[in-house]
Amino acid sequence: MTRRTGRRPGASGTREAILDAARRRFADAGYRGATIRAIAADAKVDPALVHHYFGTKQELFAAVVEFPVSPSVVVERLEHVSRDEAGAQVMRTYLSVWDLPQYQDRMRILLHGAMADERSAQAMREFVVDVLLEPVVRQLGLSDPRLRALLVATQVIGLSFLRYLVPTEPLASMSSDDVVAAYGPTIQRYLTGDLDLPGAGS
Amino acid sequence: MTRRTGRRPGASGTREAILDAARRRFADAGYRGATIRAIAADAKVDPALVHHYFGTKQELFAAVVEFPVSPSVVVERLEHVSRDEAGAQVMRTYLSVWDLPQYQDRMRILLHGAMADERSAQAMREFVVDVLLEPVVRQLGLSDPRLRALLVATQVIGLSFLRYLVPTEPLASMSSDDVVAAYGPTIQRYLTGDLDLPGAGS
Repeated sequence: MTRRTGRRPGASGTREAILDAARRRFADAGYRGATIRAIAADAKVDPALVHHYFGTKQELFAAVVEFPVSPSVVVERLEHVSRDEAGAQVMRTYLSVWDLPQYQDRMRILLHGAMADERSAQAMREFVVDVLLEPVVRQLGLSDPRLRALLVATQVIGLSFLRYLVPTEPLASMSSDDVVAAYGPTIQRYLTGDLDLPGAGS
Repeated sequence: MTRRTGRRPGASGTREAILDAARRRFADAGYRGATIRAIAADAKVDPALVHHYFGTKQELFAAVVEFPVSPSVVVERLEHVSRDEAGAQVMRTYLSVWDLPQYQDRMRILLHGAMADERSAQAMREFVVDVLLEPVVRQLGLSDPRLRALLVATQVIGLSFLRYLVPTEPLASMSSDDVVAAYGPTIQRYLTGDLDLPGAGS
């Protein structure tokens, strides 16, 4: 997906022009505000070509933040998850991205980048919350999907920091099963529990 | 504590020499490995002078990372907490540091610094885990105090990131009561719950 196709002269230039335009649009308008149509116009190409190279808006955003896995793979894994299993399943999917050696270096670089400057941090936050988590929460059909997605995000971001970025024992060497046992119930409550916030309507 | 006393000529130079030595020792040997005696030797002063200027090793470390509150204030607030109230009380203490305007800028700078380079990240991690959280967990007298402190740290670091560093609604504007309601049960379980990890002895 992030490789040049080399299929015809100018293809890699077109691809780069679309990526540049997308980078600017996502930064200026946010993930929700950016449209394929506007990105195509900025890159001076037909919107169909954007879809041809990158697929959906989600996939294009994944290419911009250089996420190692297609978001559709992540979302599909969680599409038919039962309410009771949601917390454990989110944690297993999270670990499937972070614990694979071929992804982990890329993920570390992404998280480092997100920590280092505000624009990257916002892009990463939108990717994790808007693209990956919120759709999963919405299909569970419960109240406050945005807040629930954010609660989950706070936990997985902090875990990524101490397990992978500044590896801290015993967390860094914990088995996947132990990580799921430790964090699954937290994520389960954030996704499906009665949050019971005194100040929030649902 | 971090102001110059100006009581005698050379006092500020001595103070800076101690801080420099402490910065290096904490970076090289870690919080546990660094001793007041070694720091005093590096700074070519008597250990009593280190205590005179900075108090305990915890307070010296707080001065090195420029934490806005004395750790003894934080630890005292949590010293006699009951097991049942521990989660909510940790969250209230956390919010009391982050939500005060006079501390919040300093805290943001600290977190930014911790994200930007590895040495600062390690120092901040040691400060949060070893100085602030682990003593609180240990006095609760339960199994796996180090792991419990780390679980709490992952949650509060991620929350700090999305509530304060890249302020994200509705999390950024949530009232303290709502934050305590949302996160208190998570912290309570990490502090006192049966973690039930399949791979871990306790």
